[in-house]
Amino acid sequence: MVVNEELIGYIAAILTTTSFIPQCLKTLKTRDVSGISLSMYGIFTLGVLMWLCYGLLKESWPITIANAITAALAIVILWLKIKYTYF
Amino acid sequence: MVVNEELIGYIAAILTTTSFIPQCLKTLKTRDVSGISLSMYGIFTLGVLMWLCYGLLKESWPITIANAITAALAIVILWLKIKYTYF
Repeated sequence: MVVNEELIGYIAAILTTTSFIPQCLKTLKTRDVSGISLSMYGIFTLGVLMWLCYGLLKESWPITIANAITAALAIVILWLKIKYTYF
Repeated sequence: MVVNEELIGYIAAILTTTSFIPQCLKTLKTRDVSGISLSMYGIFTLGVLMWLCYGLLKESWPITIANAITAALAIVILWLKIKYTYF
């Protein structure tokens, strides 16, 4: 059986990127951030922004686009966590 | 200035992988999973397992190791979410 490696990579990228949409919507709706780790979203957002730099430097559109979307979603969740915890 | 692209990639991988450690520890300690999205961790875990397959097929150790660790952490968070929500 021939396994299409690139197809697996694209499906993986779509899944890990879109997975943050339900968390984002849930947090926007419920404002329940007590169980969400601030450290996780702080470190994760920084990491995804570095992946975005990596994608731009390598001129890789799949890495750049996937991480730009993930970064936007992670920043929203991070902001909601800070907003509903401290303000 | 010379930018070391691969170094940025490695730092990005370390950050996005280790970011799940504080969420894992927080959830283990507090058992507070009400604000955590089950859909997010379900889809994310599936995506990371596909990244793991991609790493193995491409024989890329950085992709394989980073995603094996992330998958282990995501599976623990997913399991805790299911356990404390339904059991």
